[in-house]
Amino acid sequence: MKVGVLGCGNVGAALVQLVEERGDEIAARTGVRLEVVRVAVRSLSRTRPIELPEGVLTRDAAAVVADPDVDVVVEVIGGIEPARELILDAIAAGKPVVTANKELLANHGAELFAAASTAGVDLLFEAAVAGGIPIIRPLRESLVGEDVRRITGIVNGTTNFILTRMSEEGVAYSAALAEAQELGYAERDPTADVEGYDAGAKAAILASIAFGAKVVAGDVYHEGIANVTTTDIDFAARLGFVIKLLAVAELVPVDGGPDEIAVRVHPAMVPLAHPLAGVRDSFNAVFVEGAAVGDLMFYGRGAGGGPTGSAVLGDLVDAAVNLTKHTHAELSVAARRPIRAIDELRSSYYVNLDVVDQPGVLRAVAEAFERHGVSIRSLEQEGIGENARLIFITHQAREADVQATLADLGNLDVIHAITSVLRVVGEDEG
Amino acid sequence: MKVGVLGCGNVGAALVQLVEERGDEIAARTGVRLEVVRVAVRSLSRTRPIELPEGVLTRDAAAVVADPDVDVVVEVIGGIEPARELILDAIAAGKPVVTANKELLANHGAELFAAASTAGVDLLFEAAVAGGIPIIRPLRESLVGEDVRRITGIVNGTTNFILTRMSEEGVAYSAALAEAQELGYAERDPTADVEGYDAGAKAAILASIAFGAKVVAGDVYHEGIANVTTTDIDFAARLGFVIKLLAVAELVPVDGGPDEIAVRVHPAMVPLAHPLAGVRDSFNAVFVEGAAVGDLMFYGRGAGGGPTGSAVLGDLVDAAVNLTKHTHAELSVAARRPIRAIDELRSSYYVNLDVVDQPGVLRAVAEAFERHGVSIRSLEQEGIGENARLIFITHQAREADVQATLADLGNLDVIHAITSVLRVVGEDEG
Repeated sequence: MKVGVLGCGNVGAALVQLVEERGDEIAARTGVRLEVVRVAVRSLSRTRPIELPEGVLTRDAAAVVADPDVDVVVEVIGGIEPARELILDAIAAGKPVVTANKELLANHGAELFAAASTAGVDLLFEAAVAGGIPIIRPLRESLVGEDVRRITGIVNGTTNFILTRMSEEGVAYSAALAEAQELGYAERDPTADVEGYDAGAKAAILASIAFGAKVVAGDVYHEGIANVTTTDIDFAARLGFVIKLLAVAELVPVDGGPDEIAVRVHPAMVPLAHPLAGVRDSFNAVFVEGAAVGDLMFYGRGAGGGPTGSAVLGDLVDAAVNLTKHTHAELSVAARRPIRAIDELRSSYYVNLDVVDQPGVLRAVAEAFERHGVSIRSLEQEGIGENARLIFITHQAREADVQATLADLGNLDVIHAITSVLRVVGEDEG
Repeated sequence: MKVGVLGCGNVGAALVQLVEERGDEIAARTGVRLEVVRVAVRSLSRTRPIELPEGVLTRDAAAVVADPDVDVVVEVIGGIEPARELILDAIAAGKPVVTANKELLANHGAELFAAASTAGVDLLFEAAVAGGIPIIRPLRESLVGEDVRRITGIVNGTTNFILTRMSEEGVAYSAALAEAQELGYAERDPTADVEGYDAGAKAAILASIAFGAKVVAGDVYHEGIANVTTTDIDFAARLGFVIKLLAVAELVPVDGGPDEIAVRVHPAMVPLAHPLAGVRDSFNAVFVEGAAVGDLMFYGRGAGGGPTGSAVLGDLVDAAVNLTKHTHAELSVAARRPIRAIDELRSSYYVNLDVVDQPGVLRAVAEAFERHGVSIRSLEQEGIGENARLIFITHQAREADVQATLADLGNLDVIHAITSVLRVVGEDEG
């Protein structure tokens, strides 16, 4: 089974090496022998960690796709174009495609799956979400009959590394980010990671697969971690929480109508006893709640050549075996379901206020909460004089009501600043 | 697609209900409509949580298998016979089989898979290991190309519940066991759970799938948890460990020969920072170490009608879809690889000795360790007089050498008793 690989960065190089190392074992177990025959790269002169026979490397990705010798195409270039067009060309030529391209799938997934379905070929993408962790296949296959209600993921290793450093070593956000950049976890421009765009793309893909509906990156509400401070982390720890950047996709029942899909990315306070709380450093994990199966969690490496290459390899073997059997996996994510606005979110909230230390402050603040029907579960007063603060945790409340409360609080003379607001998960729900 | 179900206990009843509730959604997503047409039970008069149309229930399991109306067979009777024969009959009739039967697979898996392969039908068994957790499919498919080196599982919910109660509430083993029995987690005769037989069967299945070789229940070395005391648990906590009953399957490199398979079940000290340490109550988890993918963990409910029924349902949909496509999944576990004797295990050990409080004791004990080449990493002396104890943690040592040391220690007059010996994982390895 002859494989054409588009892209030879970390993941592509790892894949080529894995095919080489594991080829005999894979052939013994599946009867299919993989051979990488063409690899498309941007530059022929760059040094690579792997050696390839002469004639394998080319700068012409379209020629790899069109090569009649190539049976299966692996796309690890990333980005929307030319990846989209190359994949559509491969599918049109009846060639199964394996991709790790979260950005493309989160924006054009439905189009690509429809094309694959029409052509009757596989389009597999385990590596696009949470790197080496098998999560797409379990959702598509193991849980196809399950009523999955919610998925909560730590799906960005860079931000999890930063938050872990802040939490465990007490370093500031900027220092932790700099460290992540030095270690190669974060890009020089870290926007995609720290602002939640990367996690948002993955949330869209997870929502599509779990709920069998079209969810795109633009449907995902997102907030990043740049405003999380070590003070927040210390308060969280004292209250029995750890702060994580979460990607959440859930079905919300609506009176007299179909469930709506809510999908968002934001930092949140996670109770220490929750399985996600122990996911440290650059590890990822996806927590799945189903009506029959209960709670599941899938944990592992969300990035890196080895783990991501391993996920691509699993898909590649599957696509190759399917091709020999003239079969393929179907996936329908074309249906559209209503996306729930973030305003309608119901959650518990942590609110940290920098206040004037004088009588009547608490009453004024409490009035603002009461006015919008936001009920307070716990309250701490901290410090005196210039350092006085009020820290609230609310009962479940509607996001819009909390935002209206915050707007009112911002207008109070007795409040210096709304230091932070974080959603709290796993508490007071249902 | 017409389904015949053999057995209608917790899992069977949950499955029938899930097929009813989720049938429309499954049909919408896969194009396959499931219908349970026959259910074989032991007694027709027993009350059940589900209602079935007249004519569906029967006491004749063989007739369900033979019924030309039945396309797919689900076996949730358990035990070796008649399950084995019924499954072989179904396979011979060209009908895919979904089973949750760990005991049968751990003893006759290779025979059954060979029969399924010959007949060209699916034999799927996600529910046989770790209940609702997708682990068999990820190992068979997602990780088919991965060089899986070791699997470490908490795969028995009953013993994990007991150990959690002992650890978190300080209750004695016997009291925790009684509580597990009251809650229905443990059988009246708890031998299969507490002595590690149940976990051993699952370890054999995991080893077979991960390493593509025939491993049977009889290959698995096992120790149970009946001798674990709250004292051990307290010492473990002080040293930064928690005690878990682990099922371990690993490949061990052998100089100049093929890797050997080591497979065992025993209580062990797990470092608190290890992802398995946080797996509490009756939850299960399977930790997988691969050469390329790194560390993975799969966490969830290991038992119960809902979770196990959900796993059976996932397989059932897969088998039904494959049947409509005239395809099936292959699995070859017939190859035999050398099984490594427990004597050859290399591990770190915790040894707790009840000793005479007099000069020279430590020297005598140290001599016994030294005689067998077992090197001591840390040592604590505790208590005085009648309560004097020595607590050791060794560096990695060979099991046979440690056993020889323990035999020597047992002959020393200055030692009242070897209170406990536990293997320590995740420390000082490699």
